[in-house]
Amino acid sequence: MLENFKFVLSHTTHPGNIGASARALKVMGLSQLALVNPSNFPSAQATERASRADDILASAQVFVTVEEAVADCRLVVGTSARTRTLPSQLVTPRELVELILQQPARVPVAILFGTENSGLTNDELHMCNYHVCIPTNPEYSSLNLASAVQLIAYELRLGFAQTPELPEQRILDNEQPISREQLSGLLEHFDEAMRKTGYLKQNHEKQIDIRMNRLFSKANLTHSEMNILRGFLRSVLYRCQ
Amino acid sequence: MLENFKFVLSHTTHPGNIGASARALKVMGLSQLALVNPSNFPSAQATERASRADDILASAQVFVTVEEAVADCRLVVGTSARTRTLPSQLVTPRELVELILQQPARVPVAILFGTENSGLTNDELHMCNYHVCIPTNPEYSSLNLASAVQLIAYELRLGFAQTPELPEQRILDNEQPISREQLSGLLEHFDEAMRKTGYLKQNHEKQIDIRMNRLFSKANLTHSEMNILRGFLRSVLYRCQ
Repeated sequence: MLENFKFVLSHTTHPGNIGASARALKVMGLSQLALVNPSNFPSAQATERASRADDILASAQVFVTVEEAVADCRLVVGTSARTRTLPSQLVTPRELVELILQQPARVPVAILFGTENSGLTNDELHMCNYHVCIPTNPEYSSLNLASAVQLIAYELRLGFAQTPELPEQRILDNEQPISREQLSGLLEHFDEAMRKTGYLKQNHEKQIDIRMNRLFSKANLTHSEMNILRGFLRSVLYRCQ
Repeated sequence: MLENFKFVLSHTTHPGNIGASARALKVMGLSQLALVNPSNFPSAQATERASRADDILASAQVFVTVEEAVADCRLVVGTSARTRTLPSQLVTPRELVELILQQPARVPVAILFGTENSGLTNDELHMCNYHVCIPTNPEYSSLNLASAVQLIAYELRLGFAQTPELPEQRILDNEQPISREQLSGLLEHFDEAMRKTGYLKQNHEKQIDIRMNRLFSKANLTHSEMNILRGFLRSVLYRCQ
C-alpha cells in the first residue's frame, strides 16, 4: 500500500528541503516524490541532505503544474501546519489514515505540500479532497517542509506498513526474565542478609517485606541481574558469619 | 505538561541538526533542550536552521556528561531507529505516551538522543528506563536526528497538549519516584558495599556496574524503596568495618 502514495512538493524554494524530504520518505518506506516547479533541482545540496536516499531523488518526477502532478491520483490531500478557512474537510494526520483505510479503492493518493513561505495557493487548495492539518504550537507554527513530510510519512507507515510494529528482540539466555519462584528465592536471600546484618530487626519487618517485593517485581529481573544480587548477598552473609 | 520534557542530544556532530531540533521542539510547544558535548555550538548554522526558534538555542543547557544532563529527571527514555539488543523495555512513540500518562508523577522526563552516526552508546542505553523505537523501513532506517526529535515531539504534543492537566494524583512524598541523581547515589552506595564485602573484586566490575545500573533504572524506585536499600547497605558497611 505504501507504494500508492505520491508526495507532491509544489514550488519548493530550498533544495535542502527536497533532499531531506527524499530521506524522510525513504526511511518510512515510501518512494514516490513529485516536484512541481522547484527553484533549484537537481542540486548538490539536495543530494547531500538526501543522505543515501538519492535513489528517491533520481526517480523524482518533475512537473510544471500541480494539475499534471496529481493527474493519475484518485485522492488529493493538501497539507498545512496553519489553520485557516479551508474549502475541504480538515483532518488530523491520524484521521487521514482512517479515511484512506475506509476508501481503499481511492489510490493512488497525492499528498500535496505548498511552498515554504506561504503554503498552498488557493488554486492548489481547491484541488484537494481533504486537507490535513498537523497539530502545532499556536504561537509558533513554523513547521519545516521536510519535517511535515516526515510526520505525514510516519503516520502513513504506522497505518499501512505490513511489517510488525516492532522487531523481534534477540535475548540471550542470561537476559531472559526470571520466574516468580526465582524472585521468591532472591527475596528470601535478601531477608536472610537483612537479618544477619542487623538491619531488619530495628525496623518494621512487614513494611520492608512488602516494599522489597514490590521493588523487585517492578524491576523485571533477568538471570544475570539476579545472579549479581545473589553473589553480593552471599558475600554479605560470608562476612557476617 | 509539555514543559516537563527535556530533550537531551548527546555528542551531536552537525550543528544544523541542533538548530533543526530547536525548531522541531518549538513548533510542538516544547522548550527544553540540553546538549551534551556538541561538536560545534553555538554555531551560525544551528541558528540558521533554527529559524525563529533561536530562543530555544539561547536557553539550551550544555553539559559534559549525560549523567549531569539527566540528573534532575525521574524518567529517562532512550531513542533509536535501529533494532538491536536492548536492556530496557522497547516501546513505540505512541506507547511511550501511554506509559507516561500512567505515571504522572515521573517528571521531569528526559528524552535522550545519541550521536548521528552510531546512536546511543551502551553506557547511555543502560541509563534509560524505557527505550523508544521509531518504526522505520527495515531496508533504510537512517532517520535524521532532527526528524527523530520532530516525531517524538509530535507524539508528545498529541498526547499532552490538548488534554487538560492530569488529575492530581495524591502520592505520599515517600512514594514519589527518585531522581536520576538519587539513583546514582544509591548505585555508589551499592558499589561501596560490594567492594567492602569482597564481592566486587572477584568479578568483572564493568559488567556488574552496567547491570546494576540497568536493573535499578528498570525498577523505577520510590523514595521508600531507596531508603530500605540504603538502610540495608549501611548495615552491611557497619558490619564490614
